Amino acid sequence: MATRRLVVIGADAAGMSAAHQAIRTARTHGNDLEVVALERTDHTSYSACGIPYWLAGDVDSPDDLVARTPEGHRERGVDLRMRHEVTAIDTDNRHVTVRNLDSDPNSSRDTDNDTDGATEYRLDYDELLIATGAEPIHPDWARGIPGVLPVKTLDDGAAWQGLLADNPATAVVVGGGYIGMEVAETFARLGITTTLVTRGAQPMAQSFEPHMGALIRKGLEDAGVTVVPGTDVTGITEAPAGSGARLQVTAADGSAYPADVVALALGVRPRTQLAKDAGLRLGERGGLVPDAQQRVADGVWAAGDCCEVFDRILNSHWYIPLGTHANRAGRVAGTVIGGGEAHFPGVLGTAILRAGHAEVSRVGLRTDWLPQLGLTDADVITTTMESTTASGYMPESAPMAIWVMAERATGRLLGCQIVGGRGAAKRIDTAATAMWNDMTVGDIALMDLSYAPPFSPVWDPVQIACRRLADQLR
Amino acid sequence: MATRRLVVIGADAAGMSAAHQAIRTARTHGNDLEVVALERTDHTSYSACGIPYWLAGDVDSPDDLVARTPEGHRERGVDLRMRHEVTAIDTDNRHVTVRNLDSDPNSSRDTDNDTDGATEYRLDYDELLIATGAEPIHPDWARGIPGVLPVKTLDDGAAWQGLLADNPATAVVVGGGYIGMEVAETFARLGITTTLVTRGAQPMAQSFEPHMGALIRKGLEDAGVTVVPGTDVTGITEAPAGSGARLQVTAADGSAYPADVVALALGVRPRTQLAKDAGLRLGERGGLVPDAQQRVADGVWAAGDCCEVFDRILNSHWYIPLGTHANRAGRVAGTVIGGGEAHFPGVLGTAILRAGHAEVSRVGLRTDWLPQLGLTDADVITTTMESTTASGYMPESAPMAIWVMAERATGRLLGCQIVGGRGAAKRIDTAATAMWNDMTVGDIALMDLSYAPPFSPVWDPVQIACRRLADQLR
Repeated sequence: MATRRLVVIGADAAGMSAAHQAIRTARTHGNDLEVVALERTDHTSYSACGIPYWLAGDVDSPDDLVARTPEGHRERGVDLRMRHEVTAIDTDNRHVTVRNLDSDPNSSRDTDNDTDGATEYRLDYDELLIATGAEPIHPDWARGIPGVLPVKTLDDGAAWQGLLADNPATAVVVGGGYIGMEVAETFARLGITTTLVTRGAQPMAQSFEPHMGALIRKGLEDAGVTVVPGTDVTGITEAPAGSGARLQVTAADGSAYPADVVALALGVRPRTQLAKDAGLRLGERGGLVPDAQQRVADGVWAAGDCCEVFDRILNSHWYIPLGTHANRAGRVAGTVIGGGEAHFPGVLGTAILRAGHAEVSRVGLRTDWLPQLGLTDADVITTTMESTTASGYMPESAPMAIWVMAERATGRLLGCQIVGGRGAAKRIDTAATAMWNDMTVGDIALMDLSYAPPFSPVWDPVQIACRRLADQLR
Repeated sequence: MATRRLVVIGADAAGMSAAHQAIRTARTHGNDLEVVALERTDHTSYSACGIPYWLAGDVDSPDDLVARTPEGHRERGVDLRMRHEVTAIDTDNRHVTVRNLDSDPNSSRDTDNDTDGATEYRLDYDELLIATGAEPIHPDWARGIPGVLPVKTLDDGAAWQGLLADNPATAVVVGGGYIGMEVAETFARLGITTTLVTRGAQPMAQSFEPHMGALIRKGLEDAGVTVVPGTDVTGITEAPAGSGARLQVTAADGSAYPADVVALALGVRPRTQLAKDAGLRLGERGGLVPDAQQRVADGVWAAGDCCEVFDRILNSHWYIPLGTHANRAGRVAGTVIGGGEAHFPGVLGTAILRAGHAEVSRVGLRTDWLPQLGLTDADVITTTMESTTASGYMPESAPMAIWVMAERATGRLLGCQIVGGRGAAKRIDTAATAMWNDMTVGDIALMDLSYAPPFSPVWDPVQIACRRLADQLR
C-alpha cells in the first residue's frame, strides 16, 4: 500500500493535535501515513490565552507559552514547514499551493514539489486538514497607529512588551469579552490607569446574564479598572495637547478616553478566506462546518478556530473559538484520518476566566438565546443564589453568586453562570458534566458531591441553586 | 383529619433536615403534621467538621458552627425539646419513652404526655424518625485520662479549647482518618509538636490507594506533622520523669510517643443501641438500613450517621458517616413523611479534606474493594497522572496527582482520587458527576470542561487521566 499523505494547514492547537494523533493512530492500525504541516508564522502550538499573563509578569518567557517547539514536532515525525503559507486549495485534484515566505522571491517554480529554493510549490495530499484558526477583528480606524494593537499572537505579545517597557501611564482596552477582561486585569496589575470600553451593557454581555455581568464589572472595578459600558468605539486619534496622554479613543456618543496605549480586544473571526476560495461551504457565523468526524468535504477535514462547533444545548453550530475545542476536534480528526474511530460529541459553551478580583464561569444557554431553540421565557425557570466558596465560618470563604436556568417541561438544566471569589468558578465543571448527561435540576440536587469546611458549604451551592428550581417545578 | 405527629430522635443534620422538610411538604400538600424533636444534648444542628478549624482559630466562636439555634428551629414550627433523651421505642404501640434530663428525678410519671416536671414520659407518634447519629470510638484505655479526648462534639471542642489554653508543647493524634488529618493540621498550625499515629500503612489507608496515601502523608509532613504509620496504639500512660511531656502514647510494638495532650480520632460507629433494643434490624456495619424512602419499619424512618447508606458503585450499603448524606437523607425522609415523593439515590463515597499542605479528595472504589463486587485486578485498569492545578507557566500552578480506575469490560469510571495543591481537590466533583451518570472514561475525555490559564492546563487533568485509560482500552 502506498504511503498516504496528510497535509495540515496551520500548526497550532488543532493542527498539531490532529497531526500527532493521526501519526499515533496510523501506527497503531499499521497504516502508512506521512504528515506535512505548513505554518505561515514563526510560531507553533502556543497558548494565546497565556499572553496577558506573560505581559503581567506571571510568565517569565514566551517560551513558557509554547507547548511544543517546531523541533519537538519534527522529532515526533511531523514534516513541519515553518513560514510556509498555503495560498490555494484544489480539492478536485487534491493539492495545495504553498508559498515559502523565506525563499528567494525571484526563483519561483510554481508546480515543483521540491521545496529547495522555491517560492511557491504544489503539494499533493490524500487528506487535507484545514486548521487556519482565527484572526482578530481589527477595524480600519485602529490600523497603523503606534501603540494600538490586538493581543492575539506571540508577535503581538512581544510588541506589547516593547510598549509596556515605556511605562505607559494610561491604557484603554476596547472590547468586553474574554481577552478584554484578561488584558484589563493585566494592565491594572501593572499599575497602569486602565479603562475598559465595551459596547455591551455590561462586560461579557455576549455570554452572561446582565445581572451576572454587573458582578463581573464589580470584579474589574475592585481591581482598579474603570469600566465604560454601552459605548461604541469608532476611532482613535492623537490626544489634544495638554491631555497628558498620547492618544484618545473616541466613541459614537462623542465621549473620548485618553490612552498612551490601546489594546484591541474586539474578538476574533474564523480565518476562512482560503477555504472559501476553494469552494468549501461556510456556516452562518463564517466558520467551516465539519461533521462529527471533522470532515468538511471528500478528503478535506477542518478543526479549531476556523470552524463552527456543534453546541449540544443549542442543537446547532455556533462559533466558540477556544483552545480546548481545537485540541479535542483536532484529536478526533487525527484519529479518523489515521484509520481509527472517533466523533466530536459537541460542546456546551463552557468557559472560565478571571476578571480582576472575580472568578467567572459559564455553561449552556443564556436567556437571550432561548428564541434560537424556539423557547420563550415562559418555557424556563431561573434563579440566582448568593452563597460562599467555603463554609461561611471559614477564613477562605468568599462570596459567590450562581445563576441557573432549567427547562420547565423537563426540568433539564439548560445553563449555569458563576461569579465569585477564589475557588468559585471551576465548579462550573460540575454543572457542565451534569448538562452533558442531560440531568434534571432535581437529580443534580441529590448527587453526592464533596464537602469539607475549607471547600464548600455543607449543601453545595450549585446543588442548592438547582434544588430551588426543582422546588419551583413541583 | 386528625393531626399526625412526627417524633424526631436527634436534632442534628439529619433530624432537623427531616423535621423542616416534613413541615414544608405537609403544608404544601395541605396535611396536618405536628413535629416534636427530642435532643439529649445542649446542641443542635452544628458543624462537627468545623470543630478543628474552631480550635485552629479560623472560627471565632462555636456559635458560628451552629447552623440553626433551638430558637430558630422552634420559630419554624418544630416542638424542639433539648436535653430530652429517648430511652425506649415501642414500634408496636407507636410510642417512645422520653427522659427529661433536667427535671427533678423524684417526680417520675412514667406515662404522662405532659412534660411539666416529668422525669420520664411517654410520647405517642404516628411517624418516628431515628436520627441518633454516631458516637466516637473511645477505647477503655483512653478513658478518664485528663488531656485525652475525642474531637466530635461542641462540648469536646470546648474542652479542647481549655486544654489548648495551657499551651501544650506536644500532641499525639491517634487515628489516620478524616478527623485525624484535620486535627493534626490544626495542632501543627498552633505550633504544637504533633505526631500522628495510625494503624494504616499510610494516612487515610481505609479509603485511598497506598501511593496516594503517601502523598497525603507528605502533605502532613510538609505542614510539620510527624507521621507514624503501621502502628497500633494500645495505651496511654503517664510519661516517664524527665521526658518533658505529661503523657505517653504506647503502641503494640513497644514504641512510645510523648504528648501533653492526645486527640482520639479513631472513627465513629453508628449510635444504634436504642434502635437495636426496639428490635429494628441493623446492617453488617452496625447501622440501620433504610429503604430508598428512608423507611426502616412501618411508621419508622431513619437518616444520618446512625444509618448505612446505599453506595451506587458498590451496589450495597456501606457506612459513610457524613453531614452531606445526613442532610440529603433527612430531606428525603421529611418529604415522604410530609406527604410528598422522594427517594434517596445513594452515594458514591465522595469526600474531600485538607491534610496539612495537601488538598485531598476521592470518589468511588479503591482496588482493595474490588472483591466485594466480584472483580479482580484483571477486571480493571488504573493510571496515575501528575499534572498541575493551573497552566504550568502560571504562578498559581501547583502539582496535583490523579489516580483513576475504570472497568475493563465497560470502560466505566469506577474511582478517582486526587492529591495536590490549592485548587486540586474540588475537581473530584467532576469525576463524581460523571460516575453518577455511569460515564465511560472515553466519554469523559471528550466532555466540554472549562479552561483558562489560572484554572487548568488546556487539557483538563481529570480528562487526560481518563483519556489514558480509554487509550489502553482500545
